[in-house]
Amino acid sequence: MSSSDTTTKPADLTPLKQDPTYGRMANALRALAMDAVEAANSGHPGMPMGMADAATVLFAEHLKFDPSDPHWPDRDRFVLSAGHGSMLLYGLLHLTGYPGVTLDEIKHFRQLGHMTAGHPEYGHIVGAETTTGPLGQGISNAVGMAMAERLLNARFGDALVDHHTYVIAGDGCLMEGISHEALSIAGHYKLGRLIVLWDDNSISIDGSTDLAVSDDQKLRFEAHGWHVQQVDGHDPHAVSKAIAAAKAVTDKPSMIACKTTIGLGAPSKAGTAGVHGAALGAKEIEGARIKLNWPHEPFEVPDDIRAQWQAVAARGAEPHAAWRRRHAAADPALREAFDRQIAGELTPGWETAVHGIIAKFAAERPKIATRQASQLVLDALAPVLPELLGGSADLTGSNLTKVKSQAVVTAKDFSGSYVHWGVREHGMAAAMNGISVHGGLVPYGGTFLVFADYSRPSIRLSALMGIRVIHVMTHDSIGLGEDGPTHQPVETLPALRAIPNLLVFRPADPIETAECWALALQHKTRPSVLALSRQGIPTVRSSGAENSSSRGGYVLAPASGPRKATLLASGTEVSLALAAREKLEAEGIPTAVVSMPCWELFAEQTHAYRTEVLGETENRVAVEAAVEFGWERWIGPKGRFVGMKGFGASGPADKLYQHFGITVEAVVAAAKEGL
Amino acid sequence: MSSSDTTTKPADLTPLKQDPTYGRMANALRALAMDAVEAANSGHPGMPMGMADAATVLFAEHLKFDPSDPHWPDRDRFVLSAGHGSMLLYGLLHLTGYPGVTLDEIKHFRQLGHMTAGHPEYGHIVGAETTTGPLGQGISNAVGMAMAERLLNARFGDALVDHHTYVIAGDGCLMEGISHEALSIAGHYKLGRLIVLWDDNSISIDGSTDLAVSDDQKLRFEAHGWHVQQVDGHDPHAVSKAIAAAKAVTDKPSMIACKTTIGLGAPSKAGTAGVHGAALGAKEIEGARIKLNWPHEPFEVPDDIRAQWQAVAARGAEPHAAWRRRHAAADPALREAFDRQIAGELTPGWETAVHGIIAKFAAERPKIATRQASQLVLDALAPVLPELLGGSADLTGSNLTKVKSQAVVTAKDFSGSYVHWGVREHGMAAAMNGISVHGGLVPYGGTFLVFADYSRPSIRLSALMGIRVIHVMTHDSIGLGEDGPTHQPVETLPALRAIPNLLVFRPADPIETAECWALALQHKTRPSVLALSRQGIPTVRSSGAENSSSRGGYVLAPASGPRKATLLASGTEVSLALAAREKLEAEGIPTAVVSMPCWELFAEQTHAYRTEVLGETENRVAVEAAVEFGWERWIGPKGRFVGMKGFGASGPADKLYQHFGITVEAVVAAAKEGL
Repeated sequence: MSSSDTTTKPADLTPLKQDPTYGRMANALRALAMDAVEAANSGHPGMPMGMADAATVLFAEHLKFDPSDPHWPDRDRFVLSAGHGSMLLYGLLHLTGYPGVTLDEIKHFRQLGHMTAGHPEYGHIVGAETTTGPLGQGISNAVGMAMAERLLNARFGDALVDHHTYVIAGDGCLMEGISHEALSIAGHYKLGRLIVLWDDNSISIDGSTDLAVSDDQKLRFEAHGWHVQQVDGHDPHAVSKAIAAAKAVTDKPSMIACKTTIGLGAPSKAGTAGVHGAALGAKEIEGARIKLNWPHEPFEVPDDIRAQWQAVAARGAEPHAAWRRRHAAADPALREAFDRQIAGELTPGWETAVHGIIAKFAAERPKIATRQASQLVLDALAPVLPELLGGSADLTGSNLTKVKSQAVVTAKDFSGSYVHWGVREHGMAAAMNGISVHGGLVPYGGTFLVFADYSRPSIRLSALMGIRVIHVMTHDSIGLGEDGPTHQPVETLPALRAIPNLLVFRPADPIETAECWALALQHKTRPSVLALSRQGIPTVRSSGAENSSSRGGYVLAPASGPRKATLLASGTEVSLALAAREKLEAEGIPTAVVSMPCWELFAEQTHAYRTEVLGETENRVAVEAAVEFGWERWIGPKGRFVGMKGFGASGPADKLYQHFGITVEAVVAAAKEGL
Repeated sequence: MSSSDTTTKPADLTPLKQDPTYGRMANALRALAMDAVEAANSGHPGMPMGMADAATVLFAEHLKFDPSDPHWPDRDRFVLSAGHGSMLLYGLLHLTGYPGVTLDEIKHFRQLGHMTAGHPEYGHIVGAETTTGPLGQGISNAVGMAMAERLLNARFGDALVDHHTYVIAGDGCLMEGISHEALSIAGHYKLGRLIVLWDDNSISIDGSTDLAVSDDQKLRFEAHGWHVQQVDGHDPHAVSKAIAAAKAVTDKPSMIACKTTIGLGAPSKAGTAGVHGAALGAKEIEGARIKLNWPHEPFEVPDDIRAQWQAVAARGAEPHAAWRRRHAAADPALREAFDRQIAGELTPGWETAVHGIIAKFAAERPKIATRQASQLVLDALAPVLPELLGGSADLTGSNLTKVKSQAVVTAKDFSGSYVHWGVREHGMAAAMNGISVHGGLVPYGGTFLVFADYSRPSIRLSALMGIRVIHVMTHDSIGLGEDGPTHQPVETLPALRAIPNLLVFRPADPIETAECWALALQHKTRPSVLALSRQGIPTVRSSGAENSSSRGGYVLAPASGPRKATLLASGTEVSLALAAREKLEAEGIPTAVVSMPCWELFAEQTHAYRTEVLGETENRVAVEAAVEFGWERWIGPKGRFVGMKGFGASGPADKLYQHFGITVEAVVAAAKEGL
């Protein structure tokens, strides 16, 4: 997978001059990386070999970690944003003795059934704090982790929460747009405990970075309010000194540009794109063993080096024990809350709040937008769920994501629970992923549904990681009206429904909205999207007692006799389906209405249940103000669809529904056609 | 849609002191904006009122345009990146007399059936050079336009191509990550004819921008190699002077920070978020008429002001005529090529090249990856299609998007036809949109299919605009192997297929690859994605004579007798389906294989054709190394699907296919089950 422009240099077998303390420790990482990539005949040796010196000293002198308890809540977080350099992380985890990261796993790098996947996967190997690989995501997750640390510190104090977040990022991470959003957020919130080591190796896949980029990164980070240093990335003491200086700057995030040679140690390929993403080959590795003065067999790490790495691993025992003592000595209520939040268990009592708001909706039967219903749910939840962290990508007043009990988080005060993320949907979503994997908080964030596209790479990763992040996405159809087709999602629902493990909720009324919020909160290992309306709709449910939304789809209104038609709908079109049902029933056609707030949960019900809900008649009509894509599964080949056929248009919502033929009359006609 | 934190100030009715030359011209724009938003009771008056002064002087003294020929190829391009301020553009187009932009259209702002949509839509109103609204897109399109100008200038010379690209961008545009990619590209390529006016009004929807952002924009742009100036955006002469200075700097793109008051003229709401995105209300408008000294009826523009704007419009006649003279005097072959490229007609002869490579594939029957086939097609096409502009987001050697005849575009030499876009999928896609709407070139760009998510907002806009942009997306399934689930698309195909007007091609072999390339080139009003494999597959077609891919789906291998099973597949799974067919036929089960390289084109065939292809038997099995989502349409409720059920894993491709059960045996078993 190397570029056609790849160049190699003549082999240079002169042994490297390396640091007496850390040089051989770093070479162990280099050797494991090149040997593992060689065995797999696939992978990226260049980055681990380039950043081995910096990573070694970070672990040896700074990182607060304890492999005997990889989930110790107050550990420093280490994020390998340049995830293709996974062997650097795996080498570190192996040499410091993380559970399960055996030499056998290293030998089975990139093999099915092993934890040493091509890119580090959260939940798949212990010590991967987040899943990285898609560039720019890790550094942006790290911004969320660093925010989570400050947010929890403001809630639980220095005794329980007091750690740093370290990142290794490459040129690719910094070229991605998401890095702009992440840097800008970090600078705005003055995340002084976030320290980024930039692997400044001047090489990307296509060749020298100057083929494509001329940015002054120092100036760029400074423009975002960062503290910036530049060091020789192969001088561990210089790197350590820079990290110490970065820690001392507490009111700015820090970037340390580590000037490195990619693939350091490879005799002919070091410093070229040829070492980035392919195995070195036997001859190059042979030369590297000479150059690195590493006369050992593949995968062999001499005992003295192992002992040095074990000593590094042992560094964490004391701070860990001290933290345990502080934890034991903490106020019991505070400790209990902390432990519960870190475990991701919701604060008891929240369900009562949901039941209360549902009862209120049932009694008052408001005709409001589901975004308004969502705000009322949040109004009830926020005071009883201190772990809830709200926000919006500069659409607070439109998403209705903020409630009165929420104070705004600022750089000076992290005790609040609402974040103004700015116009940064992608950065928000990635930071929410970081907040979620950090533990201790349940993040939700708002934008318009159509802008799910902007944050989609991060939504995908949340689904892959299996973490709880809640996306509140309002203005969910042509029903938003005048803003027009640029803002009207028509394909966004199917595009989200296609993502495995993501729950896509589109509630039909205030009661379903409350139920869907509860479901999103209850699912600890799945992210959720709540697709909510701009426009008002009637309350269609009479009670929340049966928690119908939990089954994903259900008969909202049964047919008055043997069912001759089934109308399937979601969200704002459910009330339209109900109106159509009334007409059909009046004409003597027994018709059921099925509300489908969550396809994924419906698909997970028993076959018997689904069959019962969908009904025996094949005369099914689906109604949704979106494209048909995917509905075929539920309506079958004899079914009909009333919805969008393409992009929307600018105009008042009611006129658009008429114009695009999403009307009661159209549904009635479709149901009759199918008789 | 205003924020809950919105504040208004006490009304201040003191008439503004305004520039004697341009003040009233600008007020005409302000009045039209506030009146149109009021009539629609929807829209964004703040930005047009804030930027009216700068826009007026840009049009009056700098912009090269001629409303009598809005498509004059060498006009300056003007992009309203802050598309929500659409009334600023509509006001300008109306007052300068663009065809069709009547006062009646202004009065019907945001109404169905009118060209004055909520956000400016390309092709919907003349003078909208691109569709804007989703923030950050316009400025990134403009980078593409400015590149197109330099690329065409290198091909056709100063006589035919010699114009500027102007952008008005807001805080939101600059917060979006895509702006980082765009600024970085523009700086790298030293696009000296790109001039961005930043509406520096310190207000976003949630309130003061300092709620969410602390960036030093001046430093930021300088970090990307831009020339930066700061001016009072309400002083037209200062703005004009800055534009003149920006034009004089030819080796750097320029940003002019125009310090403005959002909603200038609104007596109590100016300078607040309250004026951003909602009608001002009768009282506020009444006050604005006093403050602006604009004692006219709604939508009334006094004759003297109209005359001044008409004089501005007339400025373009002379340079336009001069250009026509140069055009007439140009070398006829050069002129013909220029005219053809601008019209988007492909250079004759290209089809011969495609037929040639297909004949070669048919004769040699290579077993290669479709990405390799694509490179061979490009090898044949690039020399005969000078309008073809290739590139990759730093995956050139993986996407195989570059061929030998293509020279690399650099800041010093734009005569090349290959762009190293860097790790900037989103910026690349948006720039390609800009290149396409500029006219004269046919852009294609490569990345991995899974990273379609990064560029999705721009892909969506290309589909909405109906423009020719070709995305070469390789590594299209778990077949990429060891990189693992972060890099393996499973939901990406359905997510792309859900986008209206986008052609998603997944060719099955080298011959289909060539056919799909030809189809992508032929569709002038639709963007395309070519989903290509990393791994090698056999040539399954024997000839290209029938151009089967043009029908989207076709019977590749008929059943030997009355059809008992139909196997549907795309891409690399077509050869798997063929192998399954052989086994089934050997067992006496007549089986057809249908190749479906493009669902969209298949869906557009006649019902009769589709029915014939899909066959009478309901025993259909679809095979695709992706999730099932959407396949239900083709296989029906009795169909079966062999494919992915969730995310992939890291390991060699063949092991993954086995592990996930995408095998010949599984297809055979599924077909037998359905008998």
